[in-house]
Amino acid sequence: MGSIAVEEPKFVDLTHHLAPEVLVRKTNPLKDIIRISLENPHLVSLANGDPHHSLYPIRRVNYEVASVADEDPVSTWRSLGASAPTETLTAPQDTLHKASLAYGHGAGLADALRTVTELNVAYHHAPHHVATMTLGNADAITKVFRILGAHGDHFLADEFTFGPMPIAAEAHGVKWVPVRIDAGGIIPEELEKVLAHWDYKRGKRPHVLYTVPCGQNPTGSTLSLERRNQIYDIAKKYDLIIVEDDPYYFLQYDPPNTEAPSTQKPFPLSFLSLDVDGRVVRIDSFSKIMAPGLRLGWITSQPAFQAHLIRYIDLSTQHPSGFPQALVTLLLEGWGLAGFDRWVRSLRLDYQRRRDFLLGLFEREVARTGLASVDVPEAGMFLWIRVHIEKHPRFRRVEHAPEEKGMRGPQTNARQLMQELFEACLKGGLVIVPATVFLLPTEEGYEEAGAVHIDDRSNFLRATFAGSEETMAAGMPILGKVLREFFADAPKKPEDAPST
Amino acid sequence: MGSIAVEEPKFVDLTHHLAPEVLVRKTNPLKDIIRISLENPHLVSLANGDPHHSLYPIRRVNYEVASVADEDPVSTWRSLGASAPTETLTAPQDTLHKASLAYGHGAGLADALRTVTELNVAYHHAPHHVATMTLGNADAITKVFRILGAHGDHFLADEFTFGPMPIAAEAHGVKWVPVRIDAGGIIPEELEKVLAHWDYKRGKRPHVLYTVPCGQNPTGSTLSLERRNQIYDIAKKYDLIIVEDDPYYFLQYDPPNTEAPSTQKPFPLSFLSLDVDGRVVRIDSFSKIMAPGLRLGWITSQPAFQAHLIRYIDLSTQHPSGFPQALVTLLLEGWGLAGFDRWVRSLRLDYQRRRDFLLGLFEREVARTGLASVDVPEAGMFLWIRVHIEKHPRFRRVEHAPEEKGMRGPQTNARQLMQELFEACLKGGLVIVPATVFLLPTEEGYEEAGAVHIDDRSNFLRATFAGSEETMAAGMPILGKVLREFFADAPKKPEDAPST
Repeated sequence: MGSIAVEEPKFVDLTHHLAPEVLVRKTNPLKDIIRISLENPHLVSLANGDPHHSLYPIRRVNYEVASVADEDPVSTWRSLGASAPTETLTAPQDTLHKASLAYGHGAGLADALRTVTELNVAYHHAPHHVATMTLGNADAITKVFRILGAHGDHFLADEFTFGPMPIAAEAHGVKWVPVRIDAGGIIPEELEKVLAHWDYKRGKRPHVLYTVPCGQNPTGSTLSLERRNQIYDIAKKYDLIIVEDDPYYFLQYDPPNTEAPSTQKPFPLSFLSLDVDGRVVRIDSFSKIMAPGLRLGWITSQPAFQAHLIRYIDLSTQHPSGFPQALVTLLLEGWGLAGFDRWVRSLRLDYQRRRDFLLGLFEREVARTGLASVDVPEAGMFLWIRVHIEKHPRFRRVEHAPEEKGMRGPQTNARQLMQELFEACLKGGLVIVPATVFLLPTEEGYEEAGAVHIDDRSNFLRATFAGSEETMAAGMPILGKVLREFFADAPKKPEDAPST
Repeated sequence: MGSIAVEEPKFVDLTHHLAPEVLVRKTNPLKDIIRISLENPHLVSLANGDPHHSLYPIRRVNYEVASVADEDPVSTWRSLGASAPTETLTAPQDTLHKASLAYGHGAGLADALRTVTELNVAYHHAPHHVATMTLGNADAITKVFRILGAHGDHFLADEFTFGPMPIAAEAHGVKWVPVRIDAGGIIPEELEKVLAHWDYKRGKRPHVLYTVPCGQNPTGSTLSLERRNQIYDIAKKYDLIIVEDDPYYFLQYDPPNTEAPSTQKPFPLSFLSLDVDGRVVRIDSFSKIMAPGLRLGWITSQPAFQAHLIRYIDLSTQHPSGFPQALVTLLLEGWGLAGFDRWVRSLRLDYQRRRDFLLGLFEREVARTGLASVDVPEAGMFLWIRVHIEKHPRFRRVEHAPEEKGMRGPQTNARQLMQELFEACLKGGLVIVPATVFLLPTEEGYEEAGAVHIDDRSNFLRATFAGSEETMAAGMPILGKVLREFFADAPKKPEDAPST
């Protein structure tokens, strides 16, 4: 038997993507001294000013967590409530517990890193990328934007997207360029069009693509493997970094009304799985699969980016709290990878039931009005409801925007009507989110000649199925009723509204 | 009985200190929608995409913590070890536990905020300032620097300071201006001199002073109340924000060899206590009094700064993990404020014993050489050892630096000799930190004509007494021996070194 050739990572040098702030950032000279202590344990060290561990007033932390012995543990957990079986996890005193209470490495606790690396290998087959613990996705994304985004840089993102993240980067001078999406997410041809026809008068060509590939927020779309491959090829061709924000990775569903949902079906390939160059920075979170209050997640990247991330972490937040890091370590140990897999598959089944429940309600209460429709989301937490605003009696075409600017304004009054509809929902007793809230903040002039203006395509509402069945059951009839009334226009007495 | 007049806060509007990045930062439009849900609980909300709490796999977390029933609980905790009495704290299911696992407010959990506000009122008599939870002081300081520091701004700091924090701000364009310090910390007259004689060719006058008022790192100095008042007056006069970084506040000591340490003596007044204008941003941490791995602290400021801080937190790290927030809440509830006070007073007694132990060793093993001396630190974790470098046989005056630059270079070879001494310590088996590691990174030319150059005043070493007695007992004899050998110069055979 010959020796097995270990595949070496041959990541491309992509450090030219880093912002000047990163390159200016010095290392802490004290760290060099402390490194001497760490690397030479025989030396007597009076260097570190760390509190002595015998002075921490915390003897032990016990985490009582769900058992995953069943085939469908989430269902057991929910149905049995307070009497559902649990197991108690406790960090060993002299290793994990002690480390979790002390100052640690910027990348996170060694045990926690081992844990998430195990997940990376199992689900993304990415043994050569490295993990860095984060405080959840908002922290991770904004840190990545900060190290990649210089003042005046352009970043690409889905034209409807989760707003806070672009806003965070805008504050340090990043400009956003929208990419057209459809029910399948980013349209690769549209992405390439933006890059191929980039107007350099705007500045440097965009060098970062930010996207949520599964269960996109707000549209619920999921990129097919074919599109992922196409997008990755475009990223190679135009030298893009792909920031893959994937909080809903584990919440991917079967088509509705699947007789026996196949809990064993594999999870689709992520961008990370395809990343031969090291141009994907993947962002994972425990918020959706454990609990958001943990404030824990991880970034996966090629090592060169990690080095700069850690330097930034050391000079900003430091590593995450030891408690959530210890918990996920213990959980993955206690449950085992197989138990973890059972939990997340069972969880996706639960959310799938919620999705199907909301879809059923939507069908019965809303779709029958003929005034709205949905695509079935394959992942995530959201239904993206298309309102057939063109059926509204006051829907009309409007004046063109000035052509001299080389772009077209909205062609209809759809945006105004959607705002009225949102207000009518509130008045009717329902809070639901209008598409305009998710519009990528951009400069003017990205509308192609002949293309339908984004305002004319903002005829959507986002509804979540993450909440309780009671809320969904209460909400959909309101939406149906409000739609009927609104499309009948000016219904003074709600009872009189025609049921279309 | 008449009604009690409640003193209204009359903070000065200081928002002109905010960096442009802060003012550019938009709010998240989704938050406005979610606010509608929160403020109108009768509405059905399909807006929030939060995971349903029944899906968190964490039933309960039990924290086993030190009992504070004794008068000197830290001593009991350390001497009894594993058999020391503990109490177990558990968050109530439907309130704190549930909230700690969910998404929360950027400022932190309401319970945790109530807890630290109680500490602010008890120790700093600052009922009108507001608290914001942080991930510890590195996070807090760098966030404050980010919201106050525009590119090209000048900040003031002690000429020797804990390096990473200035380095963090340098990366976004803040320039540092050193303030002369002595054994009592910042010299108010020197601070005023910098401001009164500011050369506007350098840019805007410094508008932020960053300082560690108690047990300064690295020098161990503590500002007297008289100096605090003087510095606060200067801050008013020159419109400075004072960033009071005070991790060692609770670790303030009696003079050495105090017969009966008065555990009941009050803590000195902080800058926050003096802050009538709202120009102090105070930064506290649980790292030194609980455990650094919690990654929890808080910022105290006037409300106008908090609003911008929260906006930044919402678009970066989000709130701290729910676990450490729940723990400190439970701890302060379980111990009570009186129990907390017993713990921190007992803790300072413990560190005071460590300080006195190191001072005793220093006296016996080092001071007797006549080659080094110390001032007694009144707080913190560090001994700042002055090396009498002028006694070294190779110590000499050097050439002046070019006078045409309007400044003077080092006048001696002290810095070179100190570097050699550091290396001799390493070779001798001791890691100790040279002063140059703590030099505030600055531009050239802040040396006053006639003043002694900072390089000529960098003849210090920092040693910690936070470690174990064994380490201290091993370290000081090495330092004494190395000093004797080094000052004898070129001791080929260490045995031959004269014992001065």
